[in-house]
Amino acid sequence: MPSTQMVFADRASHREWLLAQSALPAGFRVGCSRFDFTPAEAPKPARMTLTLVALDRPSPDFAAVFTRNAFPGAPVTVGRGRLAGPALSAIIINNKISNVCAPGGTEAAERVCAETARLLGVPADSVLPSSTGVIGWGLPVGAMLSALPGAVAALSAGSVMPAAEGIVTTDLYPKVRRAAVGAGSIVGIAKGAGMIEPNMATMLVYLMTDLAVPRAELRRMLSAAVEPSFNSISVDSDTSTSDTVALVSSGRVPCPDARAFESALARVCSDLAEDVVRNGEGVRHVIRVSVVNAPGFGAARALGKAIVNAPLFKCAVAGNDPNVGRLVQAIGKHVGAHDPGADLSGMRMRLGGVEIFSGGAFRLDPGKEAALVAHMRLAELYASAPPKNGVYSPPVDFPAHERCVEIEVDFGQFGGASAVVLGSDLTHEYVSENADYRS
Amino acid sequence: MPSTQMVFADRASHREWLLAQSALPAGFRVGCSRFDFTPAEAPKPARMTLTLVALDRPSPDFAAVFTRNAFPGAPVTVGRGRLAGPALSAIIINNKISNVCAPGGTEAAERVCAETARLLGVPADSVLPSSTGVIGWGLPVGAMLSALPGAVAALSAGSVMPAAEGIVTTDLYPKVRRAAVGAGSIVGIAKGAGMIEPNMATMLVYLMTDLAVPRAELRRMLSAAVEPSFNSISVDSDTSTSDTVALVSSGRVPCPDARAFESALARVCSDLAEDVVRNGEGVRHVIRVSVVNAPGFGAARALGKAIVNAPLFKCAVAGNDPNVGRLVQAIGKHVGAHDPGADLSGMRMRLGGVEIFSGGAFRLDPGKEAALVAHMRLAELYASAPPKNGVYSPPVDFPAHERCVEIEVDFGQFGGASAVVLGSDLTHEYVSENADYRS
Repeated sequence: MPSTQMVFADRASHREWLLAQSALPAGFRVGCSRFDFTPAEAPKPARMTLTLVALDRPSPDFAAVFTRNAFPGAPVTVGRGRLAGPALSAIIINNKISNVCAPGGTEAAERVCAETARLLGVPADSVLPSSTGVIGWGLPVGAMLSALPGAVAALSAGSVMPAAEGIVTTDLYPKVRRAAVGAGSIVGIAKGAGMIEPNMATMLVYLMTDLAVPRAELRRMLSAAVEPSFNSISVDSDTSTSDTVALVSSGRVPCPDARAFESALARVCSDLAEDVVRNGEGVRHVIRVSVVNAPGFGAARALGKAIVNAPLFKCAVAGNDPNVGRLVQAIGKHVGAHDPGADLSGMRMRLGGVEIFSGGAFRLDPGKEAALVAHMRLAELYASAPPKNGVYSPPVDFPAHERCVEIEVDFGQFGGASAVVLGSDLTHEYVSENADYRS
Repeated sequence: MPSTQMVFADRASHREWLLAQSALPAGFRVGCSRFDFTPAEAPKPARMTLTLVALDRPSPDFAAVFTRNAFPGAPVTVGRGRLAGPALSAIIINNKISNVCAPGGTEAAERVCAETARLLGVPADSVLPSSTGVIGWGLPVGAMLSALPGAVAALSAGSVMPAAEGIVTTDLYPKVRRAAVGAGSIVGIAKGAGMIEPNMATMLVYLMTDLAVPRAELRRMLSAAVEPSFNSISVDSDTSTSDTVALVSSGRVPCPDARAFESALARVCSDLAEDVVRNGEGVRHVIRVSVVNAPGFGAARALGKAIVNAPLFKCAVAGNDPNVGRLVQAIGKHVGAHDPGADLSGMRMRLGGVEIFSGGAFRLDPGKEAALVAHMRLAELYASAPPKNGVYSPPVDFPAHERCVEIEVDFGQFGGASAVVLGSDLTHEYVSENADYRS
């Protein structure tokens, strides 16, 4: 699927475009409430945002996919149970603390849901909880319950922007995508910047639609849509314990065309997934790997992931250094470990459209080197700014362009499967963000 | 196996200790030759060191293990062929260019071997070639042939130090380990700092012994010795295309005790493997993960690798930040992907000897947090120095202490298997080293 990434000159024009995308489908309202608190585990003040997404009436038509991490957060465990329930009325989301492996985490999530349900006048098991932030700490349940009435009072139809802005943590900007189908629409928001190699879904993604699509169809379509989108990206190879993609329909608008809906859903997921990579922690280059003529989709995607997760290659990209030897290292490590008998004699590689490898050997010369460097420089989202007090920070907080470092790997099995994987470089900005994130 | 890492106050005292380890076993000589050249692919002057390890007479008793990367370098391919030959006479090693996937790479390696053999008066197929450096470029064969007589003329018994110093690339210091058995010894040297997650052996390791051990025994012992040593470390999860561990006996001294020899070999491999991690690119903390009560050795080691290869956890360690949520994320990602049905209810974790996780939940409080921070600070090899011209460089070039960030994971299957894995943090120094290594 081709990219529909947008180009912006500054944060103001980006925000204007986001607002234009943010019209809520019929039947939804969103509201936020912010408050200060002090975590019990490491006493230092913090600010939490509660974000509430509410349906005007409970809907049986909803779907959700969750992380495959073996230590899922309490909200994921509770959310899996919700899938068996009759209807969804609301989603209550908090940032700062992810409620993962915290003593009493499930009870805490259920208490927040119950109070949300009481305030909205709906059943407690129709509220989906969602949390993101530090792993291991407990939710400040008392403070959250006190703040909930504020979120309910703030509920408003019109724009999804308050929710898109409410759910972020280290994201530089909110992420909103919209697709129209007939008289209705699908609107999605996402958060996620680090700990991003989703294995089912990226950290937190909420998709709202007013188009009437039955539960079973929604679930099938969502499962299909996450594979080439959220499950085909990686910022840092870390799979979050909180990954969640939820899709809910208010059923207000008849769906004129199921295939158009499915296609629009796939587009929104694909766009949000690229937004997540493009706004990944410390990302200065987005890398797009296209693997073709591979033995299967799984093998193609796994090879693409192996490339975008190889630290030395990621560092070379950060430095605009076409160190293609590290690309071959990454491919060779992956194939050697997972398919040691594979015939690689027909493998070909291109970087920025330039053939660099075929017939088992590199095809390099100084002219190609110069072209590769130019391609990488052009794909740099921003030039690294000198650190302040030892900390590197991105000088831009909007998507500056839509270009990628383009890698094509032809596995050499004519007529085989293909996959596209999006990843990123490894930069000083990423290390600065993560070597002292929590303290 | 407990660590025997040494502590040094400065480079001079470290070098003194290295020299004390470096007595060559009987029957070996080493010599080096350095020269300047200009690579064809990216014209910029470079300096190469040729290192020659020569036996006084060809020996049938040698062993070698190589990378499992599916794009092995030409020297690895040639070296695999040498294993079938009758004897080994010499090893010819170059740095700067690894001769991987370069057009005509095999022919280039064979030409260097043939000229080495001619100068030494031995069969060409008794010379093992070895190369490390940039992947993809071609060897400067002409210049190497011109330099070879200098290396032959420099051959000298006595100390292995010229070879230990000759084979390095980005290493901060040479690595030499020695063990005595009866009247003989095993002496090993290693290079390797980045692209280090060996899958068979680390980049380049040469083990020399004068103890007479037959070829079949040597090969069995070497295969066993690399598993808990070189195959249980990772600096950056990248598996080199050149990994090689070679072991050769001159047979000059009767071996009094095969088990003592095997034990000494294991010790030398284990020590060199830790040396490689401790001197890994940008390493400021060595992380030692001990996994116990696991379903099997493979599962235990894979879990340990998953922990030391998780970028967010590595960044947290770099920042002396006991962000143990990232540790649980790494474990959960690995188990969720590879053994999704595993029962983790009995899993316990300790960091720096402090229990942090049991019964599915964290056991944290501010007092423990302070103890964890203190443990991590104590294990820091050096404090990061501010960058000069945007480049971070380690301020020390010797092993400053022997401590590790100690992680223990009890899988909860009483009486099960165990493994120890060594890894490192992810630092600005690593990014500086690798975002502009080649240019």
